[in-house]
Amino acid sequence: MMDLKEIDGQVQQLIRQVKDDTIQSMSQPIDVDEKTGRKDLVTTVDKRNEQSLILGLRKILPEAQILGEEGFGDQVTGTDGWTWIVDPIDGTMNFVMQQNHFAIMIALYHDGEGVLGYIFDVMNDDLYHGGPASGVFRNETKLEAPEDVPLRDSLIGISGPLLIENQFNLQDVARVSRGPRMYGSAGIEYVATINGELSGYISYLRPWDFGAGKVLAETLGLVVKSIDGTQLDMLSSTVVLVATQRASQEVIELAN
Amino acid sequence: MMDLKEIDGQVQQLIRQVKDDTIQSMSQPIDVDEKTGRKDLVTTVDKRNEQSLILGLRKILPEAQILGEEGFGDQVTGTDGWTWIVDPIDGTMNFVMQQNHFAIMIALYHDGEGVLGYIFDVMNDDLYHGGPASGVFRNETKLEAPEDVPLRDSLIGISGPLLIENQFNLQDVARVSRGPRMYGSAGIEYVATINGELSGYISYLRPWDFGAGKVLAETLGLVVKSIDGTQLDMLSSTVVLVATQRASQEVIELAN
Repeated sequence: MMDLKEIDGQVQQLIRQVKDDTIQSMSQPIDVDEKTGRKDLVTTVDKRNEQSLILGLRKILPEAQILGEEGFGDQVTGTDGWTWIVDPIDGTMNFVMQQNHFAIMIALYHDGEGVLGYIFDVMNDDLYHGGPASGVFRNETKLEAPEDVPLRDSLIGISGPLLIENQFNLQDVARVSRGPRMYGSAGIEYVATINGELSGYISYLRPWDFGAGKVLAETLGLVVKSIDGTQLDMLSSTVVLVATQRASQEVIELAN
Repeated sequence: MMDLKEIDGQVQQLIRQVKDDTIQSMSQPIDVDEKTGRKDLVTTVDKRNEQSLILGLRKILPEAQILGEEGFGDQVTGTDGWTWIVDPIDGTMNFVMQQNHFAIMIALYHDGEGVLGYIFDVMNDDLYHGGPASGVFRNETKLEAPEDVPLRDSLIGISGPLLIENQFNLQDVARVSRGPRMYGSAGIEYVATINGELSGYISYLRPWDFGAGKVLAETLGLVVKSIDGTQLDMLSSTVVLVATQRASQEVIELAN
């Protein structure tokens, strides 16, 4: 097996290639299909990106299993050993409707612990990457941990459905904050939290939505938990909170 | 009086200078005060920008009155003749909390009719400018009218307080759409609508929040109205809708 630094270098090369392919694909019409309904889309770009990523990741670490959003990876039923988690286009609705505000994400876990995370904010051309061994970088710049701001003095990202239906008292969470924000892509909202633009973000997420963000956020001292305050199961979908230490305590208290 | 093209050139030069000053100010600590409460902020940069803009606009068109957010302009009580409307930092909360997602805006009206509009998306370094005589430009690129998409097939911007409190049935508007978005700056959401990333945007706005966006949006065939479907009073604050023709009809129907 390659060492971690070598793996990291190759994954960065791979994700940059898939980013370039994505940009190029946007100059042509894109086929769009509904998955579970009209608010859950998939495109030919999601599918082709996932296939490219899986092909590349298999070469980089053949012994790893791969969990991918569009189902081209493995049937993953446990977290023992090495696991890649792949989201070929995060924020597909934004990708289709806005050609903006979407991400490509990859995570590497070992025995359920985060090792490497990658979030490519494609239209800003910013690759967020790193993990506990190296720290977190935006392109070549090493990032400092965001300030541990309380909810009251910060903006908070909340997904549309959760806010509208007032799930987990999230309307109160929004009222206590300086204001809610809603960008429509987990990757983009994780990045905003990592950058300190938001004190946190709450949404119903699947493993590929939070896999990469969890590695990067926890490396920077942020809290990533289920909204009820328990640890995440890496293979389950649930309402996930990423936040500063202080904001996470306040949100969990208000939400339960 | 200069001709319109000359005025336009000078305003572009002025707003670029104020943008540069704004960027420079962000490398130093910024004094922040509350205006009406903890969710309504003003900074030394808002105040200094407004003073710079007013000084410049007085030279460009001495006979015009000036309505500015921070009160350094004139007591404007009517729309006869020439009127500048100035928002020195739109999205001050984002400016303070995110150093991102804010705008500088200027509008020129004559006898209540929009003549020129400017929205500077500072952190993307994109100046949206133009009016009915010339069309609308992003920097040097002339923009086409966004597609007349219906609400059902599009994303819609809705301000936090209106969505949380379900004012004007805006939760239903969000449910009918492909999803709500919330960026926290009228300028940024007008720009997203002009770019076709959103089919529209609904928020309680003051004249300096919608003055520039109204000129640009209407030039591109978008509808700008009060949420009850009536024409805007250029000197009053109200819940304002900007949207495509089709989305505006649907929103007004759902909201009333």
